[in-house]
Amino acid sequence: MFLVRSVSRTPVLRAPRRWAHSFPQLNSVTEHDLDYFRKILPPSAIITTLPPNPSPESELEPFNNDWMNKYHGKSTTVLKPRTTKEVSDIVKWCNDRHIGIVPQGGNTGLVGGSVPVKDELIISLANMSKVRSFDDVSGILVADAGCILQSLSDYLAPHNYVFPLDLGAKGSCQIGGNVSTNAGGLRLLRYGSLHGTVLGLEVVLPDGTVLDQLTSLRKDNTGYDLKQLFIGSEGTLGIVTGVSILTAPAPQATNNVMLALPKFENVLPLFKEVKRQLSEILSAFEFIDRRVYDLAIKHGQGRALDAEETEGAECFVLVETSGGNREHDEQKLNSLLESLMEADEPLINTGVLATSPAQFASLWAIREGLTEAVSKEGKPYKYDISVPLQKFQEVVDITREHLRSEGLMREGAVRHVVGYGHVGDGNLHLNVVADAYTPEVEAALEPFVYELVAKYNGSISAEHGIGVMKTHALHYSKNAVSIDWMKKIKQLFDPNGIINPGKVLP
Amino acid sequence: MFLVRSVSRTPVLRAPRRWAHSFPQLNSVTEHDLDYFRKILPPSAIITTLPPNPSPESELEPFNNDWMNKYHGKSTTVLKPRTTKEVSDIVKWCNDRHIGIVPQGGNTGLVGGSVPVKDELIISLANMSKVRSFDDVSGILVADAGCILQSLSDYLAPHNYVFPLDLGAKGSCQIGGNVSTNAGGLRLLRYGSLHGTVLGLEVVLPDGTVLDQLTSLRKDNTGYDLKQLFIGSEGTLGIVTGVSILTAPAPQATNNVMLALPKFENVLPLFKEVKRQLSEILSAFEFIDRRVYDLAIKHGQGRALDAEETEGAECFVLVETSGGNREHDEQKLNSLLESLMEADEPLINTGVLATSPAQFASLWAIREGLTEAVSKEGKPYKYDISVPLQKFQEVVDITREHLRSEGLMREGAVRHVVGYGHVGDGNLHLNVVADAYTPEVEAALEPFVYELVAKYNGSISAEHGIGVMKTHALHYSKNAVSIDWMKKIKQLFDPNGIINPGKVLP
Ligand SMILES: Cc1cc2nc3c(=O)[nH]c(=O)nc-3n(C[C@H](O)[C@H](O)[C@H](O)COP(=O)(O)OP(=O)(O)OC[C@H]3O[C@@H](n4cnc5c(N)ncnc54)[C@H](O)[C@@H]3O)c2cc1C
Ligand SMILES: Cc1cc2nc3c(=O)[nH]c(=O)nc-3n(C[C@H](O)[C@H](O)[C@H](O)COP(=O)(O)OP(=O)(O)OC[C@H]3O[C@@H](n4cnc5c(N)ncnc54)[C@H](O)[C@@H]3O)c2cc1C
Repeated sequence: MFLVRSVSRTPVLRAPRRWAHSFPQLNSVTEHDLDYFRKILPPSAIITTLPPNPSPESELEPFNNDWMNKYHGKSTTVLKPRTTKEVSDIVKWCNDRHIGIVPQGGNTGLVGGSVPVKDELIISLANMSKVRSFDDVSGILVADAGCILQSLSDYLAPHNYVFPLDLGAKGSCQIGGNVSTNAGGLRLLRYGSLHGTVLGLEVVLPDGTVLDQLTSLRKDNTGYDLKQLFIGSEGTLGIVTGVSILTAPAPQATNNVMLALPKFENVLPLFKEVKRQLSEILSAFEFIDRRVYDLAIKHGQGRALDAEETEGAECFVLVETSGGNREHDEQKLNSLLESLMEADEPLINTGVLATSPAQFASLWAIREGLTEAVSKEGKPYKYDISVPLQKFQEVVDITREHLRSEGLMREGAVRHVVGYGHVGDGNLHLNVVADAYTPEVEAALEPFVYELVAKYNGSISAEHGIGVMKTHALHYSKNAVSIDWMKKIKQLFDPNGIINPGKVLP
Repeated sequence: MFLVRSVSRTPVLRAPRRWAHSFPQLNSVTEHDLDYFRKILPPSAIITTLPPNPSPESELEPFNNDWMNKYHGKSTTVLKPRTTKEVSDIVKWCNDRHIGIVPQGGNTGLVGGSVPVKDELIISLANMSKVRSFDDVSGILVADAGCILQSLSDYLAPHNYVFPLDLGAKGSCQIGGNVSTNAGGLRLLRYGSLHGTVLGLEVVLPDGTVLDQLTSLRKDNTGYDLKQLFIGSEGTLGIVTGVSILTAPAPQATNNVMLALPKFENVLPLFKEVKRQLSEILSAFEFIDRRVYDLAIKHGQGRALDAEETEGAECFVLVETSGGNREHDEQKLNSLLESLMEADEPLINTGVLATSPAQFASLWAIREGLTEAVSKEGKPYKYDISVPLQKFQEVVDITREHLRSEGLMREGAVRHVVGYGHVGDGNLHLNVVADAYTPEVEAALEPFVYELVAKYNGSISAEHGIGVMKTHALHYSKNAVSIDWMKKIKQLFDPNGIINPGKVLP
């Protein structure tokens, strides 16, 4: 998945996707435009390689290239406005002049949405990073879109609140980017999706109008909830400049336990039992198949269970709890474990309960180290999909069988097909570990995997979005009527097609 | 609030609002239309007063009049389709013929949205009432829009799941109506809003197209989340025919406690402390001011605390917990109470913990009896608003002072101005109890209350929506840009203006 792939999906034709896009209707940024930008922004807020005083190319690089260094834009100019008014003025100008714009947050997106396809103007929100208000009674936080997720978490900690979202990229990603990608992350099972927790947005629309729906009310039924359209639209409908969000009281205790299961069929009954017994304190239920577990061990991502304990285990589950009372939570976990072990037909072979912060960390280390382990083992094709929980193992097995039948499960081609993911959210990370990224393997995987996902009415992108990477595959998850209506919405908001051109829509 | 009010808001002019609307562009249902409807529907699915075989007017009454018996439509025809295809065929026909349509669920809405303004065709979803699927691992339920809320709760109970929504009208309201009004209700604090829990919708658009976004995936980031637009749009953008929703594991224990507070200023520190100590098991935090508490007692809505215990109490708070372990929950509540009572400067005077189901019910009876008590005391003007928690008491007091300064706080005019509500949700029920509904009182209250709400950036409708009742007041909660964009969205989906004309938009 982390490859530039051909439009036609035939392995021989490897013309990079991005050049397939061209926007004859859009203009490049000129010196004339810069004259205007200089009137409204200080010099420090403009980086450009255009004359008369060009910055070195290298200053543009971090903005033109994505986190995976897979997508490469050719923008000449980055603007870093400090206020919503400045964003609005810039966007209005660009709309009048038909200049393409890419809104950019922390640039940690994984589908190429945050970098230009050609030479669009980049508007970075990095200079809009103030907390506007926080109400420590309601837990409602209002912040500039450019606030970095980690800094918001840090801001909330002394108030005894937590951000309802947590993800690996928290040190760089921005709340505006999180909202624009409808990021899921590690706390979704507990706090739900951003569609529920985001209470209000301030958005600069493609014509420069400021749509102020930055309410900080938990309940407001006065007409259409327009802000929802911007959650997950990856910057193609407008630029988010402010976010109002409901944060959650910080849990007082966190525990975890690693369970070894004799067979995959036990995962679902186990999930039900765990939900029943842990109820409101359950905060994660992560599935790890045996193969990827072994890879984690092989590559030194911690060792949770003894070799004999894992003997005969077909898969593992990591359960996390977050609650208001350490003692109660431990009691609940202990009695869960007891009842699991003492059952007539136990669902698990064994379980390890973290009894110290170090053990807690080492259990999570396995789960968090899976991505790294997979990368150490070979070249991973990564699919971030949603399928019904019942199908997790089936998707992995069918994909492996398919590759075998294509003669690709062999040295020199594919080494492993593994799966892990958030059972609680139906989100499976299907990883195909190859010796090298080759057209052969790619052709065997796509559209095969997308078709498999479509067969189960799944999602080809559970979390990461469509960006520029999956526009051609959108139809596997969205029917024609839906795509047609997305296009109408895009046309309504952005008739000139200036905002994040080439992204999301095919 | 439950009065037909004048458009101009001058007390003398009492021309009922509803006649102010007229839709010259829309046609009435004719016998020709009925010929078509008879082709696609069985006779039992059609109720009409039109020739040649007119039903008695009385059969139409339950559909033409709203729950409060305040809004009265003049529809000649109700259709009760059984399938999405039938809904689609009807809507397509009406769109071609420019016939206005009112989608109707349980007809329990409180803002006149569910009955015709003139003689629009009523499409009742009552015959679409099947559960389509339920997955007892993920808790995802897919149901026809016409399923009654109570019946869905009953369906879930043996599976050990609860519906994430509960409200007084549950015996009649339908899930499609709940979604269309973005109903809040009693479990919002615990399970969040429908924008988070609704996973997918099937909607018949105004041109008859079926927009199938009935996914049952918890995570799906493939393009714009169009379904969100229909949540809370009160049937003005399309007819919801199917709903996919995430239900929650049933709590194993529920407890409550009534607290008496010496002064309103303590409510907020108390809320913080309660959130901190009860954390994830807190499921309700209801504010009751002294005056409305006394009304509840006066009108026999249970007696929670002894007279001496309530002495000096300025207000009350009802706290409810729902959790996975009765013992743990009781321990948490007990230690909360202890710490509250033993504090150096206690936030509460006293507290009563329900120790039996009967006591539990009697505590809730007070809260639930407030509406009835207020109605027994006089004619209530009811405002369902959101304001910052800090302003709850202020809004009540300022309104009372205003009425006093207008000379209306007297026998023969206004008796009480009281407040109660969901502190957890920022939702205040401001009730002005008058001796009679009079133009004088009304003129003193409106737009006064709306302006007050606007001053605090509040919502003039926290839960109930806009319907036909508050279209003229929408601008107090939504700015011009927002209203303008709502109109554009309406125009995009419903260019002929056939779906629920006269509702939501001014
Ligand atoms: C190590 C790592 C771990 C990750 N883990 C997760 C995870 O657990 N769950 C998950 O869901 N995702 C995850 N992601 C991907 C995720 O999309 C991003 O990390 C994050 O949400 C994007 O935020 P950003 O500020 O970096 O946005 P960017 O990458 O800058 O932009 C992402 C998209 O949003 C648009 N955008 C950004 N800011 C704005 C704005 N203010 N207004 C309008 N549009 C804007 C961009 O145009 C682009 O289309 C991970 C990424 C990395 C690198
Ligand atoms: C006793 C009582 C208590 C209540 N308590 C609460 C509460 O706690 N919280 C709260 O939020 N509300 C409450 N309400 C109001 C609430 O709006 C409704 O009870 C409920 O959500 C409406 O559902 P319904 O099926 O009756 O819809 P209806 O009244 O039939 O319709 C309401 C609106 O939705 C539209 N609509 C209905 N069905 C569809 C459909 N399938 N597709 C498209 N549009 C449709 C209608 O056109 C109308 O505009 C209460 C009402 C009563 C009478």
